[in-house]
Amino acid sequence: MNASTTSSGTLLYAQSGGVTAVINASAAAVIQEARSRGVRVLGAHNGIIGALREALVDTSSWSDDDLNKLAHTPGGVFGSCRYKLPDPNTDDAPFRRLLEVCRAHDVRWLLYNGGNDSADTAQKIAQFAREAGTELRCVAVPKTVDNDLVVTDNCPGFGSIAKYTATSMREATLDVMAMSESSTKVFIMEVMGRHAGWVAASAVLARTDDLPTPQVILFPEITFDAEAVLAKIQSVVARDGWCSVAISEGVRDADGKFLADMGLVDKFGHKQLGGAGSVLAGMVQNQLGIKVHWAMPDYLQRSARHIASATDFAHAQAVGKAAVDLALSGQNEVMPVIRRTSNAPYAWDVVPANLVDIANREKTMPREYITEDGFGITEAGRTYLAPLIQGESYPAFADGIPDYFVPEKVFVDKQLGGFEV
Amino acid sequence: MNASTTSSGTLLYAQSGGVTAVINASAAAVIQEARSRGVRVLGAHNGIIGALREALVDTSSWSDDDLNKLAHTPGGVFGSCRYKLPDPNTDDAPFRRLLEVCRAHDVRWLLYNGGNDSADTAQKIAQFAREAGTELRCVAVPKTVDNDLVVTDNCPGFGSIAKYTATSMREATLDVMAMSESSTKVFIMEVMGRHAGWVAASAVLARTDDLPTPQVILFPEITFDAEAVLAKIQSVVARDGWCSVAISEGVRDADGKFLADMGLVDKFGHKQLGGAGSVLAGMVQNQLGIKVHWAMPDYLQRSARHIASATDFAHAQAVGKAAVDLALSGQNEVMPVIRRTSNAPYAWDVVPANLVDIANREKTMPREYITEDGFGITEAGRTYLAPLIQGESYPAFADGIPDYFVPEKVFVDKQLGGFEV
Repeated sequence: MNASTTSSGTLLYAQSGGVTAVINASAAAVIQEARSRGVRVLGAHNGIIGALREALVDTSSWSDDDLNKLAHTPGGVFGSCRYKLPDPNTDDAPFRRLLEVCRAHDVRWLLYNGGNDSADTAQKIAQFAREAGTELRCVAVPKTVDNDLVVTDNCPGFGSIAKYTATSMREATLDVMAMSESSTKVFIMEVMGRHAGWVAASAVLARTDDLPTPQVILFPEITFDAEAVLAKIQSVVARDGWCSVAISEGVRDADGKFLADMGLVDKFGHKQLGGAGSVLAGMVQNQLGIKVHWAMPDYLQRSARHIASATDFAHAQAVGKAAVDLALSGQNEVMPVIRRTSNAPYAWDVVPANLVDIANREKTMPREYITEDGFGITEAGRTYLAPLIQGESYPAFADGIPDYFVPEKVFVDKQLGGFEV
Repeated sequence: MNASTTSSGTLLYAQSGGVTAVINASAAAVIQEARSRGVRVLGAHNGIIGALREALVDTSSWSDDDLNKLAHTPGGVFGSCRYKLPDPNTDDAPFRRLLEVCRAHDVRWLLYNGGNDSADTAQKIAQFAREAGTELRCVAVPKTVDNDLVVTDNCPGFGSIAKYTATSMREATLDVMAMSESSTKVFIMEVMGRHAGWVAASAVLARTDDLPTPQVILFPEITFDAEAVLAKIQSVVARDGWCSVAISEGVRDADGKFLADMGLVDKFGHKQLGGAGSVLAGMVQNQLGIKVHWAMPDYLQRSARHIASATDFAHAQAVGKAAVDLALSGQNEVMPVIRRTSNAPYAWDVVPANLVDIANREKTMPREYITEDGFGITEAGRTYLAPLIQGESYPAFADGIPDYFVPEKVFVDKQLGGFEV
């Protein structure tokens, strides 16, 4: 079978891990491409959990308009999951079940859309299927706002969270600048990235010559030294009158302790859900005596489809289409990844990579992307980041809000008995 | 002098209180309208503080393109302030100084752009100027994301924060729905509104038939009953599998205590900057044992010019233009306000109102806009809110980020000695 022929049979597509603003753009591309090849697409309800439960969403009634709307809808249309398969050498029941479900529904291709945990899952399934002598082809589709997958130049989902972060930092900076004379002088924004500082780094893209923000960025890759950070913020406020800070949720001190876990408790002694931004804001207020505001956009940042990057959108669609290509042409245990072929003008293509080289690894920020003082991003870092946020991919709006695709899910009839997940 | 003639002389414009996504749209309209009448506009640097210090920004070099860009820029271009003038009966020095500054720069009209505190400031200055026998005309321009000014149907700035809130709630809900099977089931978003629940209420505009979110809204106008709120959230999760909550920062318990002040401390006993959302998230996690995410967009929500409401933008421009009209036609101690003349189709105009009827009052949510159980918005409330978020007023983008106007400020030469503020 090759990319130019059409096929019959079914492709099972699943979403996994934290969702993004553009994972559904990959989903839509998968469905469109498969349809054009005569292949039916089922979606696993809540990732691999749905595959195990035989909860499979039928996409055949979705129109072309629906798919276009889906491509502009955040979240994960089929539902996602955080679920790690066991080692098949100690417990192969879920793997046998998966093959059973695939057989029952004529599933010849399995596409798994996720990050490095998901690459591991896809890898395990592919290997088990191969060793079991089945024809099932297993292809992973990259996705993660953390941008921490190896091999690929960048991860679909990251460009949009980066664009949101840069835009929001730019806007909030204009706010704190306006307030700084007689009120708030420091603004802190906590962003995602437990182990890698890519999202925090993207805040640098807020910066222009006339708006040099943020003055401080704090990365998980750099040990948090409270004294140095506070001295830096204090000196920036003395110089500029205000200071904007982007801080990664994963910032840790010299003992390796997350700032976010610094033991916030309520009056009953219950542990509270603060965050690195809250802890730093408390330090600025209590130790420097400077009025501070802090923001934690949380899910807002990774689901902000309304300000998605057109480049990210193109990446997400391209890897979706390529994954179908690869699967239908018989490739197995691979992931289509993004390769940067030029910085200026920015150019890229999609090439296959082996899952075994990707699964369970992670790519943190190279030290040369971070300035020597640890508080900023170098030109090399900016050169890497800048192309990823170019272009606006606005969704359609209806009645003042984005017109997203939220289908009532139609499941295919179950052919098998139940399975405990 | 009437609206159709041109004038010479100078108009002094100042921004006050928390800034919004569209206060600069009012500023741009003021400058454009004044210019078309032959009137020079100076901007007070950081609100009334700049007027007292004689720190006056010259706008004459700003081109038409600059003003168009300014209209699409969040924050406050001249700088704002939180500063309350004293009672002129006990301390009239600042008032005498203001008149001196106005005289020194041929200022015949003073426009003050702010909320109810600012209306009070404008009112005091107007009264003092009148009693001092000067010709100075003082007009307030409405602005506040809190939407709590009386007399006016709504406040410029609110429509855009409402659109941001509805859009963000809609997007984050798609996220938590996707995660809910095996991970986070409750999403909480803390929004602004210390005394009035308008911003929290606007979250209801996220709702469509196919996406009934948020299921719970918590207002400052309704006493927070932890037991009832947790029972509601628990029952929604049992029914829908997930629950989205919008909570106002100003929610208080039966003792009148802000939830946000419930004594979060770090391990050293330092008070931390949590928020109502953090406290509620802790309750859901600790008392219901349900995995929760919470967001606090803080400044991001009121500076989100990239998702501003076109209706709000039109309001902000209209009150700016009307304020110049009123001032130049000799009116004093007034504010142009928005009058709703029809709900469907939505229609409005701008009419003058007396400052004395507006200053130092506040409009909270009418009880009939809140559902009987206290957790939602009625049809009447929705009918009021919906028109305010219609239309998208996107800024231009350059290099992936909004192309905002951040001028280097040029000050007019000081004519007077210093003044301590």
